Amino acid sequence: MRSIYSQVVNGAQALINTLVDGGVDVCFANPGTSEMHFVAALDTVPQMRGVLTLFEGIATGAADGYARIAGKPAAVLLHLGPGLGNGLANLHNARRARVPMVLVVGDHATYHKKYDAPLESDIDALAGSVSGWVHRTDDTADVAADAAEAIARTVASQRISTLILPADTSWTDGAHTDGVSVQQPKPVDVDTEAVESAAAVLRSGEPTVLLIGGGATRGSGLTAAVRIAEATGNRSYCETFPTRLERGAGVPAVERIPYFAEAVVAQLEGTKHLILAGAPSPVSFFAYPGKPSDLVPEGCSVHVLAGPNGAAAALAALADELAPGTTATVAIPSRPELPTGPLTAVSVADVVGALLPEHVIVVDESNTSSVPLTAATAGAPAHDWLTLTGGAIGYGIPAAVGAAVAAPDRPVLCLESDGSAMYTISGLWTQAREKLDVTTVIYNNSAYDILRIELQRVGAGATPGPKALDLLDLSRPTIDFVKIAEGLGVPARRVTAAEDFADALRSAFAEPGPHLIDAIVPSILG
Amino acid sequence: MRSIYSQVVNGAQALINTLVDGGVDVCFANPGTSEMHFVAALDTVPQMRGVLTLFEGIATGAADGYARIAGKPAAVLLHLGPGLGNGLANLHNARRARVPMVLVVGDHATYHKKYDAPLESDIDALAGSVSGWVHRTDDTADVAADAAEAIARTVASQRISTLILPADTSWTDGAHTDGVSVQQPKPVDVDTEAVESAAAVLRSGEPTVLLIGGGATRGSGLTAAVRIAEATGNRSYCETFPTRLERGAGVPAVERIPYFAEAVVAQLEGTKHLILAGAPSPVSFFAYPGKPSDLVPEGCSVHVLAGPNGAAAALAALADELAPGTTATVAIPSRPELPTGPLTAVSVADVVGALLPEHVIVVDESNTSSVPLTAATAGAPAHDWLTLTGGAIGYGIPAAVGAAVAAPDRPVLCLESDGSAMYTISGLWTQAREKLDVTTVIYNNSAYDILRIELQRVGAGATPGPKALDLLDLSRPTIDFVKIAEGLGVPARRVTAAEDFADALRSAFAEPGPHLIDAIVPSILG
Repeated sequence: MRSIYSQVVNGAQALINTLVDGGVDVCFANPGTSEMHFVAALDTVPQMRGVLTLFEGIATGAADGYARIAGKPAAVLLHLGPGLGNGLANLHNARRARVPMVLVVGDHATYHKKYDAPLESDIDALAGSVSGWVHRTDDTADVAADAAEAIARTVASQRISTLILPADTSWTDGAHTDGVSVQQPKPVDVDTEAVESAAAVLRSGEPTVLLIGGGATRGSGLTAAVRIAEATGNRSYCETFPTRLERGAGVPAVERIPYFAEAVVAQLEGTKHLILAGAPSPVSFFAYPGKPSDLVPEGCSVHVLAGPNGAAAALAALADELAPGTTATVAIPSRPELPTGPLTAVSVADVVGALLPEHVIVVDESNTSSVPLTAATAGAPAHDWLTLTGGAIGYGIPAAVGAAVAAPDRPVLCLESDGSAMYTISGLWTQAREKLDVTTVIYNNSAYDILRIELQRVGAGATPGPKALDLLDLSRPTIDFVKIAEGLGVPARRVTAAEDFADALRSAFAEPGPHLIDAIVPSILG
Repeated sequence: MRSIYSQVVNGAQALINTLVDGGVDVCFANPGTSEMHFVAALDTVPQMRGVLTLFEGIATGAADGYARIAGKPAAVLLHLGPGLGNGLANLHNARRARVPMVLVVGDHATYHKKYDAPLESDIDALAGSVSGWVHRTDDTADVAADAAEAIARTVASQRISTLILPADTSWTDGAHTDGVSVQQPKPVDVDTEAVESAAAVLRSGEPTVLLIGGGATRGSGLTAAVRIAEATGNRSYCETFPTRLERGAGVPAVERIPYFAEAVVAQLEGTKHLILAGAPSPVSFFAYPGKPSDLVPEGCSVHVLAGPNGAAAALAALADELAPGTTATVAIPSRPELPTGPLTAVSVADVVGALLPEHVIVVDESNTSSVPLTAATAGAPAHDWLTLTGGAIGYGIPAAVGAAVAAPDRPVLCLESDGSAMYTISGLWTQAREKLDVTTVIYNNSAYDILRIELQRVGAGATPGPKALDLLDLSRPTIDFVKIAEGLGVPARRVTAAEDFADALRSAFAEPGPHLIDAIVPSILG
């Protein structure tokens, strides 16, 4: 590792230098007093970009979105246990997305912890719940080596590395980066036995489904999955909530497994073999009285081809085994007609499909409104689709921040539900501050619509009472997202007709910087 | 316990009935699918009030504010690990405030957990970090008894009780409340030896400081503390961040220990004995290079009179021992003149002091702007002052929600910093929805001012660089709290002059329902 800083350095300076040398040059931050030396050290390392957020959940969600697009970790700087707590929901999503991330949690000075000062809490317990590796650096001399290990581990495992950094470790001089280097990850070997076994199943003539996920939902993985399906007559599907799905014109198309368990059951009916390539075995998102949790059909065997990290390579090997020399059919260009009339989830989807710019990154947290989007955008120019991998709402606006930081030359479209948007709405301010090219569309139906559906599906609300319905209602008062966005420095516009939405979306895509469109849509329950 | 519900009930219904029978009749909620049976059951128990929040940190902070004013626990309903994660920061504050609270965290159905569905996470680890008692109810038959134990434990210990409720425990029939009753807490006995020992110290003639906290910062505790000080010539102080401090005209006045360590050192200099009555021994909020963490002067002995729960009774016994038959001097009525000219933290304080209504509940998260408030309000009509007990910012707006729900006949004044307000700004929506009589004043100085001070104090920023300063700046773009408040249904007004602020504050107090005043003030750093 090239040492860019050879004079006497404190722990914070050594940490930032090690991060930058290890390729981690963006830090999403919401610091406090115990992180002030980290903040001060930013000026000594010009390569590190600090991005301020107004809430820790923005910082962690941004690091998730960043990693999905950049393909490498960002750092996140958080303030003690409460700061980590505020970031946990989006760390949960990032854990499920299997993205790399280096989390730096400032703590009280080592000698100060015993006094149980007001902000003292069990940081280790919280960090352990979302991290693949948690380490507390109590000696300044170890900072650089620990940071290098944090990077190496998160890159290799695609699980979050958390470094707990006491304030005195940070401020004490005597750190060094000499001889510290970030170990490069070994590529995941293709399991040739698993490939042979999967090939035999796919040749057996028994109905087989190939379920892809993890790193297989992009270029080479998708190509292999479609080649296999076309050569064997079997079906390939993508996991319900992929981390990053490449799709659109020119890209091999692999349909996603639906969200609702009963739809999955219908889709997989009759399947005798399920081959997992980077995806988990399908389970119901929630349990429902009298309905199955395990969605593998009765009598269906499950075979594991590969885990999330090695899935694309394993699929390529399998495709070469089953269909050497073939290519995959790709989606043909096609766009919906621009609709007219009152805005609905369907017309929103058609407008989006009609106007989606090339190479756009779509961050999708549209929840109940998302169903019509799939078909409406299938033939739009090639794009990436990021989804809510862990089910913890409030991921969209932050993930859009991170995606835009990772790809300043690409537009970002964030499709947001009203209820979810309110979890992390202050991310709009960071979009304004960083002049990020993000267009946020709020599906404003003034309800937790998904819960109104779930209230019926769990059998709790055959005849829901007024108190129950009131607790899922967002219309008293209605939320004015135009005012909120403007209050946070993002130009915004409310639309109720499809023509106006198309006009607003076109303008937002044409003008650099963030925009918000408050799209008033009816509840899908009518 | 009176059973108000004798037919066949499911777990959710038994839970809500037990809560209501145990005096817990408000539930701050942000539910999800796994909590839908709890939501549906609300209509079967009219006594339970469900209060919807748009983010879990609002629900937990509201339960804290509620408990501080109602003197009894509220329930909080959260959705799995991520919902609990979002609530953790304000649970941390509530833990430090030592308030009772019954936290109900919905979980996946017992049989569903093994499938590692997307929202699966380690709820127990998170709950353990903030709770005095954590229990998972896997059998519907146990719900009522477990809920009764949750209430009894939190009331007795003033620590949070967390009940993890799997969805099937909630939806299954077969629960009953027969024979279930909530055990009443035993009063904390006064430790007569500790009283004798403290009396001897206070009579010794050596400089002694009595430090009160916990339950001693109200009526009887304050009266006793002042009686003791007046009879012995020693000083009584209140902990830096009391849970609920009664003060104002007619109330015995006990000065708070300051925030900054160097000021505490100056205040306690020469003290030979420190007697703790419900307060912890004074420690620095953060560690600073070369400065002490333990703020007890060298050579000073520390004596514990009582813990937080029994402090008021112990103080009363001590006062009767040292000064039988005496009464305490109380603060005399006095108000500042209404100031004129540009708004500053000082003139804001004077306007607040001049206009504070009787019996107002002040929720103080004004941080760096708070210093002039103490003197300016010392002679205002009697009021309660709630403070940020755990240092996790974002407590003010939610705590104001809870305080207003607990005391619908009292006005609530929430003094908020701009940076802190943005953590939980959506609490304004709940204030609008519930028509709560809360006036929120935003000290809008467009900076994390406390961190600009701390950057200097930790020795990190003798000459802070532009990147460091930029990371503490909230002016790019400036945040327009008027627009944000209006977007959330709360009428709002921006003021830059003291006269306008007085006018806005008078109007807000005069008109029922929530209001926000965006008070533009300069940074205290100039």
